[in-house]
Amino acid sequence: MHKPLIRQNRFDASRQDADMLELGVCYYPEQWPREKWDEDARRMVELGLAWVRIGEFAWSKIEPQSGVLHWEWMDEAIEVLGNAGLKVILGTPTAAPPKWLVDRYPDILPVGENGVVRKFGARRHYCFSSRRYRVEAARITEMMVRRYGENPFVHAWQTDNEYGDHDTIHSYSDEAKLAFREWLAARYDTIEEMNRAWGTSFWSMHYNSFEEIDLPNNLVEEPTPTHLVDYYRFSSDQVKSFNKAQVDIIRAHSPGRPVTHNFMSQNTDFDHHKLGEDIDIASWDVYPMGGLINGRLSPETKARYLRVGDPDQPSFNHDLYRAVGRGRVWVMEQQPGPVNWAAHNQSPADGMVRLWTWLAYAHGVDMVSYFRWRQAPFAQEQFHAGLLLPNSEEDQGYVEVAQVAEEMKRLPKGEVKAKASIAILLDYESRFATRALPQGRGYVASAIALDWYSAVARLGVDVDFIGQHSDVEGYKLLLAPDLVIPDADFIARLKSSGAKALFGARSGSKTRDMHIPADLPPGPLGDLLDFRVARVESLPDFHRETVLYGNTSHQTTGWRETIRTTETVLATFEGDHRPGTPAVIGNDKARYCATLPRGEFLSKLMGDTLGWAGVEGLPDLGDLRIARRGNLHFAFNYGGVTATVPAADDATFLVGGRDLAPVDVAIWTQS
Amino acid sequence: MHKPLIRQNRFDASRQDADMLELGVCYYPEQWPREKWDEDARRMVELGLAWVRIGEFAWSKIEPQSGVLHWEWMDEAIEVLGNAGLKVILGTPTAAPPKWLVDRYPDILPVGENGVVRKFGARRHYCFSSRRYRVEAARITEMMVRRYGENPFVHAWQTDNEYGDHDTIHSYSDEAKLAFREWLAARYDTIEEMNRAWGTSFWSMHYNSFEEIDLPNNLVEEPTPTHLVDYYRFSSDQVKSFNKAQVDIIRAHSPGRPVTHNFMSQNTDFDHHKLGEDIDIASWDVYPMGGLINGRLSPETKARYLRVGDPDQPSFNHDLYRAVGRGRVWVMEQQPGPVNWAAHNQSPADGMVRLWTWLAYAHGVDMVSYFRWRQAPFAQEQFHAGLLLPNSEEDQGYVEVAQVAEEMKRLPKGEVKAKASIAILLDYESRFATRALPQGRGYVASAIALDWYSAVARLGVDVDFIGQHSDVEGYKLLLAPDLVIPDADFIARLKSSGAKALFGARSGSKTRDMHIPADLPPGPLGDLLDFRVARVESLPDFHRETVLYGNTSHQTTGWRETIRTTETVLATFEGDHRPGTPAVIGNDKARYCATLPRGEFLSKLMGDTLGWAGVEGLPDLGDLRIARRGNLHFAFNYGGVTATVPAADDATFLVGGRDLAPVDVAIWTQS
Amino acid sequence: MHKPLIRQNRFDASRQDADMLELGVCYYPEQWPREKWDEDARRMVELGLAWVRIGEFAWSKIEPQSGVLHWEWMDEAIEVLGNAGLKVILGTPTAAPPKWLVDRYPDILPVGENGVVRKFGARRHYCFSSRRYRVEAARITEMMVRRYGENPFVHAWQTDNEYGDHDTIHSYSDEAKLAFREWLAARYDTIEEMNRAWGTSFWSMHYNSFEEIDLPNNLVEEPTPTHLVDYYRFSSDQVKSFNKAQVDIIRAHSPGRPVTHNFMSQNTDFDHHKLGEDIDIASWDVYPMGGLINGRLSPETKARYLRVGDPDQPSFNHDLYRAVGRGRVWVMEQQPGPVNWAAHNQSPADGMVRLWTWLAYAHGVDMVSYFRWRQAPFAQEQFHAGLLLPNSEEDQGYVEVAQVAEEMKRLPKGEVKAKASIAILLDYESRFATRALPQGRGYVASAIALDWYSAVARLGVDVDFIGQHSDVEGYKLLLAPDLVIPDADFIARLKSSGAKALFGARSGSKTRDMHIPADLPPGPLGDLLDFRVARVESLPDFHRETVLYGNTSHQTTGWRETIRTTETVLATFEGDHRPGTPAVIGNDKARYCATLPRGEFLSKLMGDTLGWAGVEGLPDLGDLRIARRGNLHFAFNYGGVTATVPAADDATFLVGGRDLAPVDVAIWTQS
Repeated sequence: MHKPLIRQNRFDASRQDADMLELGVCYYPEQWPREKWDEDARRMVELGLAWVRIGEFAWSKIEPQSGVLHWEWMDEAIEVLGNAGLKVILGTPTAAPPKWLVDRYPDILPVGENGVVRKFGARRHYCFSSRRYRVEAARITEMMVRRYGENPFVHAWQTDNEYGDHDTIHSYSDEAKLAFREWLAARYDTIEEMNRAWGTSFWSMHYNSFEEIDLPNNLVEEPTPTHLVDYYRFSSDQVKSFNKAQVDIIRAHSPGRPVTHNFMSQNTDFDHHKLGEDIDIASWDVYPMGGLINGRLSPETKARYLRVGDPDQPSFNHDLYRAVGRGRVWVMEQQPGPVNWAAHNQSPADGMVRLWTWLAYAHGVDMVSYFRWRQAPFAQEQFHAGLLLPNSEEDQGYVEVAQVAEEMKRLPKGEVKAKASIAILLDYESRFATRALPQGRGYVASAIALDWYSAVARLGVDVDFIGQHSDVEGYKLLLAPDLVIPDADFIARLKSSGAKALFGARSGSKTRDMHIPADLPPGPLGDLLDFRVARVESLPDFHRETVLYGNTSHQTTGWRETIRTTETVLATFEGDHRPGTPAVIGNDKARYCATLPRGEFLSKLMGDTLGWAGVEGLPDLGDLRIARRGNLHFAFNYGGVTATVPAADDATFLVGGRDLAPVDVAIWTQS
Repeated sequence: MHKPLIRQNRFDASRQDADMLELGVCYYPEQWPREKWDEDARRMVELGLAWVRIGEFAWSKIEPQSGVLHWEWMDEAIEVLGNAGLKVILGTPTAAPPKWLVDRYPDILPVGENGVVRKFGARRHYCFSSRRYRVEAARITEMMVRRYGENPFVHAWQTDNEYGDHDTIHSYSDEAKLAFREWLAARYDTIEEMNRAWGTSFWSMHYNSFEEIDLPNNLVEEPTPTHLVDYYRFSSDQVKSFNKAQVDIIRAHSPGRPVTHNFMSQNTDFDHHKLGEDIDIASWDVYPMGGLINGRLSPETKARYLRVGDPDQPSFNHDLYRAVGRGRVWVMEQQPGPVNWAAHNQSPADGMVRLWTWLAYAHGVDMVSYFRWRQAPFAQEQFHAGLLLPNSEEDQGYVEVAQVAEEMKRLPKGEVKAKASIAILLDYESRFATRALPQGRGYVASAIALDWYSAVARLGVDVDFIGQHSDVEGYKLLLAPDLVIPDADFIARLKSSGAKALFGARSGSKTRDMHIPADLPPGPLGDLLDFRVARVESLPDFHRETVLYGNTSHQTTGWRETIRTTETVLATFEGDHRPGTPAVIGNDKARYCATLPRGEFLSKLMGDTLGWAGVEGLPDLGDLRIARRGNLHFAFNYGGVTATVPAADDATFLVGGRDLAPVDVAIWTQS
Repeated sequence: MHKPLIRQNRFDASRQDADMLELGVCYYPEQWPREKWDEDARRMVELGLAWVRIGEFAWSKIEPQSGVLHWEWMDEAIEVLGNAGLKVILGTPTAAPPKWLVDRYPDILPVGENGVVRKFGARRHYCFSSRRYRVEAARITEMMVRRYGENPFVHAWQTDNEYGDHDTIHSYSDEAKLAFREWLAARYDTIEEMNRAWGTSFWSMHYNSFEEIDLPNNLVEEPTPTHLVDYYRFSSDQVKSFNKAQVDIIRAHSPGRPVTHNFMSQNTDFDHHKLGEDIDIASWDVYPMGGLINGRLSPETKARYLRVGDPDQPSFNHDLYRAVGRGRVWVMEQQPGPVNWAAHNQSPADGMVRLWTWLAYAHGVDMVSYFRWRQAPFAQEQFHAGLLLPNSEEDQGYVEVAQVAEEMKRLPKGEVKAKASIAILLDYESRFATRALPQGRGYVASAIALDWYSAVARLGVDVDFIGQHSDVEGYKLLLAPDLVIPDADFIARLKSSGAKALFGARSGSKTRDMHIPADLPPGPLGDLLDFRVARVESLPDFHRETVLYGNTSHQTTGWRETIRTTETVLATFEGDHRPGTPAVIGNDKARYCATLPRGEFLSKLMGDTLGWAGVEGLPDLGDLRIARRGNLHFAFNYGGVTATVPAADDATFLVGGRDLAPVDVAIWTQS
């Protein structure tokens, strides 16, 4: 069961002493000569760092051969770091099993969708379903936790590293096949119930037993979407149980230390809410430069934001992982300069490391740890900047962290992030659903959600994220850009709450079995808003639909639904095809948008929706972004020219001022 | 041997009673509760449907376990449908063997070009060369035909379903390898004859026996094109013999019932003419929306036709399959709304289902069956519209079918499609040839043929299709856009006929062994027209050739030949390279075009060619299309504005009128 | 060890009799009836050809079954050709082992990066690491060399054919894996030294023994770059040793005959300098039409040069292979008309075969052999033109070769290519390095080097190529566009030489272990120029950097470095990001460019650099190119209009004149 409530952001006095933003860094003593450790530790403290993460790729240093254990270097590293005054976050080293281990047990290795074994030589080369690997991961974790669980310098734990990186949630191994069969048997109890859910009366797909089930790869054509979504659910559950096993070991032997995992931003291959239940703090890894290159924006807009990044992608994820961590969120890896892994790897503008750090704090993050202390001159990430250059000189990031550390001293302590007035719903099963059955090539749910977030952020409104398990009471407005599979229970709670809601296209379009609802979409959403979706279209980019909204013609693309409703029609489709059919409908409680608004249409829709819900916004902020944490107001300038901060006349500036230069940050209080 | 003649379109009195267009629908009783069947059947009849196709994916319902047979539900379904007054088309269920069967005999599964087995979970997961599957397919077919062959409600049979869908004609299994060796031994008799044909003196490719032959996948580089073309021929023959085995069983036990197969439009992986010899009626599956998205047109033109489709792609295929069916053609699956399988799935404009139905009739189709009765709320095609929505409400298609059924009553009976004055040659071996050896990336034979067809259609001229086996006598003009491998016999028959001919570039460029003809191309075409192709060029899209034709400069791209000729030069290439060399040549009998004309050049060439052959055309119809069936004239408006129908002054309109709205149909007689 | 010096171009009196350009052709007697041979040989001589290459794909004709040897046809072919007056180049037939051989020893076959065996049916289907294939290749080579080594008509040998074609240098077979382990053990001696070099302390990649090493394919993510680069080095060494084995056999049994190999232009999968050490003459295969289609230019520029090709790509390679052959270079295959293998295959403009032939001579080539005598009407290359059409008529190439043969008579003999005043460095290990770790998608080292070459060629300056093993003394200027891994020894020799040097971005950025140099890049280059690279960025195409150089703003893209220096700053980056930081720096000895200049920026930089080094250039030649060989001056017009040749007033024209038509050649002497 999900824990139902999201605790709002608070400092945990047990380990986070400052009642204020704390800083940290990722460090790899195993990669550097022993003689550098002391100076490194000293310089970290000097820079103002409080935390240091180590160990998450150290298995082959700890156990270079089967049963031959070398803890002494780690003992010493923890000692050195701890004695210098740093709090150690210890990573379990399971993200990269050693070569001798995968050679001994080849069924540890994951299998790609093409059916080919993915070999050793990088990282994440394990299958979550490998029973052997679960035994081995528990063994190394338990040894480590028993050794360091009560070490006074060890203040927190990180499980594994970046679940899902390199597309490793989905494995097509024999081990995964066997586990999937068991998972299905547990879910459906009888094969006939599974046949019903999967719709195997179609295309003669009937199964006689769970032993006949195979994984959904290398088929002649797409499998039934329920087969796919169940495989995605199964894979997600495998990650959760794999992680939970480590958490249980840590909890058993390392009392009082919080457990975190460092998530990959916007990975939707597993249910982050569910995994978040089992940890104490969610952390995530902030790489806005690659995020821009790989992201949702047009090439022209990417060029404009090249060295500042998408202004909303980091904030979106801070807010999301604050929900995943049920109020507690850290940044475990903050990009300190150019990196190595994107198609192109530009430098952040000078000042962005500082900006991102304060942005994190403004969005509720309590600890920001930079990746990494010193750039490695070897191996895969040698082009990945650190706070120090490979020759230990200070790089730009170091300078900016020092500035942050100075600025921290000017701020009051104990400021906590308040609950926002609006919430965005991110439902992972809905993401599985549209991945399994996109219906049109242009439909990217994560980009749509970020577009919605961005439209709200430009109006200066703070946002929380929730899942369907969350309490919706207390919010004025719920935004649900892609709630494909609504829970009747959630809809009931929403209905009885004080929140209004705006739903995006496809919301309510599938049951949990990945069927169209019996009386057509929107299924349970019909309890909020009376309409039926009688036809859907996915549309190519070279075509534009015209929508008449507020006496203005707007254009949309990608998706259009024909709906019938008794509710108020707020916007209509125009043009040759079915002119006058509803594009946006609503009543006092809920609204629904039957297409994918972007640009001006989306901006206007969001502005109107905030007004409708009684949420106060600002005029469009352009390239400025603002956020609040407790009594502190923050402004961030992502634009190329000096902007004026929307501070009250009585504002007291603690950092920066009313005129905000590009890449600059202002922090103030006001009455 | 090919049956030499194409019978012109006629109704077959034995099973098609109306002497008029009949309507039908595809239905899946196995997917719906028993209690819905009666009402469904009643509503079908009420709507005006005469036919219902069932059974083609029902194997696992009929035989859920090996030897455990459940015919009772199918007995009952046929009874219900037949008693309601519907004529049943029964599909053999071989397109989707059950899971237990492929688990028992894994060599049923096809193997992809990458060498990986293509697994169960969708459909068409069988290899045509699997000896075991041939036994099993015959077994289930024979059981079904023995049971229902003389059932009074069963009026026709469909073999399997959509041969070639999901790229399943070519399998790279061991079974295919063995069968390919036998096929080669039969074709060539001796290995040395094969070595000669394949040109294995090149690159040391000599074979000592047929047992050394492998399939042409996963090579270091392309195999000899004869290896490829022989593999394509072999694969085509495997489909024909697989199908023929079913036809023989049906013929043996179901006397008087015509046999059809529902072809995929423009699939050229097997020889449709050859397969057509073995069936009574060709049917095909009409999905113009996906056809537009995947088709030949530019993005701008696709945007213009987004919801009406390529105006010529459905007509092209009606005319083609009329030839494949030697005069008898049905539509087995007519798109009734948006579907699910294209990159984007737009809705047809309201009215298009009606338009497509009348278009089919105008082009000689005698029965149009819609896919499907009710949209399935589950499985792969849940986004595929039906005549009914999943909740059994009438969808738009239903309404339009009702209109067609009404309009049918106004039309005279017994109108049959007359032989056209011009014929287009579609030679499948020539398609295999250019697939094996495209020589340039832009050469897509099917798009070229459709461009030619479209240029003629815009001039209001009806067209027949033929193969090289066909009788060419009686046509005024033959269009051969890509007759790469001409038969000397066909050329001789053409020569002695009254038909003139226009040949496209590459015609005559290969022998049956995939060699360049001994005295250069055009090989046997030289009997009609004296020229030699001394050089060919494939050209990138970013380059344009200039052609001077009729005192006007035109542009072509993609392909250019340098030819020497004693014939009249009708157009020349201009510009820096070899200016003045012939682009179009001709004599009284034949013409040849040494490049790939498009746009205005193609329009003018086709107009002039019709005039030369004494075929009367109309001024360019723009977005209007017309067709004749017996005494009936039809017009279809694919444009966005009202058009004037080119009817005689004395026209009597039976449907619509002289002013034709967008997406509308006019039917009239005139003296 | 590398032989240190590049001998400048000279005719080898032993086999090249003319002291002048000689012509030749590739011929396949095994593909034609015996009765054609005599006439073919007669016509070759009549055309003015002196050389004929045969045999390189003849294995299955020589040994159609294991141990069954048919030398008689080859005996006779050599006899016929030799008696006609032709000098035979005999190719060892190892590029295409027969089917019976690969069936008997399947481990001969190479394995693709995807892990799939690459099958027989084309050519180059062998793994360089197959021990069995090395035995077999030596066996057939020794039999052939023993038989023909002292044959008076055999004047030269070619080993194998086009190493690297079809991406065949890298094989992922078990044989390759075992050989790679041995190679690593030899390179590193201890596994700990390898662990250090590979940086296996990163991501837990530690190895306990060389037996644990696997090939770098099918990993979860990229391997450590040292793993990749070592695999590329290993693969390169395998080619060298495979080739050397054949050379040794030839040297042992065919005294006095030079040995060559025909390289693929700009293949950088193996170290051509190293392989060049073992042969007497480098030859290469000149296909400028496909080179254009696949090459570096924009579509617009490709359209402009469509039928003349990239004006600098052939010259670049002539100059490169002159270095690889240490002064001796042949063209083994000159494109004689359109070919078959590119995405599009346009015709060369009439006159280009003549132009390319003279171009080759002007750049130091002593023998130009056309591929092929007669176009084959069958097999994979049937669209590949020859000097004759398939029916033995003369094609355009034949006519142009005849013209060259006539023009040769007007020229003085004994002209040799002088050493150039500038040299371009091509270092293959540096290419392996950027392939392993490109860091940005747009970085293509071969295109950058060709851009630099082109900028110099437009200024009319002759160029030599060198490797780091070469003597740099005697050059006024060294251009090093991508010397990623400099040798300290080379830098020392450069420093003590009289040459100035311009280094491109990334020069000096890696050590031989693929690490960042200990005190930051540029490592040993710091001995020439005082700077440090503190940050690198790879940049997407949609972004442009501005560089201020010579009071003019230029634009660059793709790459930018932040450097610190005490040297003179010649150009600076401008704009928002780090304005004023150096883009080009220099002192009296060396210059470094911290970005990738193109277009006008590159032209100006090269012009200034030549002036700085005291190399005299001409004003920009536009589409004209010039070259010198001894006392002969050559001009080539790649443009569309007549150009004026930059000849001295006292020039004496031997071929052409001062006004040079498109696609024309002028040859003159001047005082």
